[in-house]
Amino acid sequence: MKVNNVASIEQQPVDMEGAVGCKVRSLLSESDGTPTFAMRQFEVAPGGHTPKHHHAYEHEVFVLEGTGTVLEGDVEHPLSAGDVVLVSPDDVHQFRNTGDGPLKFLCLIPNSATGKSVTVVPECGLDLPSKR
Amino acid sequence: MKVNNVASIEQQPVDMEGAVGCKVRSLLSESDGTPTFAMRQFEVAPGGHTPKHHHAYEHEVFVLEGTGTVLEGDVEHPLSAGDVVLVSPDDVHQFRNTGDGPLKFLCLIPNSATGKSVTVVPECGLDLPSKR
Repeated sequence: MKVNNVASIEQQPVDMEGAVGCKVRSLLSESDGTPTFAMRQFEVAPGGHTPKHHHAYEHEVFVLEGTGTVLEGDVEHPLSAGDVVLVSPDDVHQFRNTGDGPLKFLCLIPNSATGKSVTVVPECGLDLPSKR
Repeated sequence: MKVNNVASIEQQPVDMEGAVGCKVRSLLSESDGTPTFAMRQFEVAPGGHTPKHHHAYEHEVFVLEGTGTVLEGDVEHPLSAGDVVLVSPDDVHQFRNTGDGPLKFLCLIPNSATGKSVTVVPECGLDLPSKR
């Protein structure tokens, strides 16, 4: 068993193409001994967003704090605390902070996502080559 | 993509042997199309607890609200909002609410947990036969 608090886990900037004002904490991952899936906490600054992108694995998201939207392709869904999102494999998606405070959410992925490619979609809607 | 709010998802009593004052919401599961793992939200009433038990699959837990403890065998770890717990396969564990308000936490399990047996451990420390 491992017990930890989110505040004691180091926060890293998300340096991925298309990410603005995003930080991430790795709460539980394979290096902690997770057999199947990993838990991360994202924090997006006001006006910031995750990359608009798609990949072959899922996200399971729980919104902890703040207000924003999640893009499903070009459709925007509003988000606030207590919202639950399943991003299915290959869904084009982006999380945006539309509020005045941080947007914080948990985002879980399968361990099998490690090393899988991610395709960033620029605002014009054309796919860029896979980055990682 | 699926977007939902926790408050709109039906809460069910946990009728498992050893559970006291526990309710659960299935936030995301195989019936929603999750490929790998399932997200549930548990709510334990003051004085209540989950069964003291073990099983061959992991839990990944994030505490949302309230105060309590998690037992790792006979060792108690205090819990409050923002705490993260990895319950590894076969760890004997129990979540207890020691506060005055509800203890709410997310608890994720692999889809492969479906149908796997769970062994309840009574307070005297002896295993009971597998119940489900």
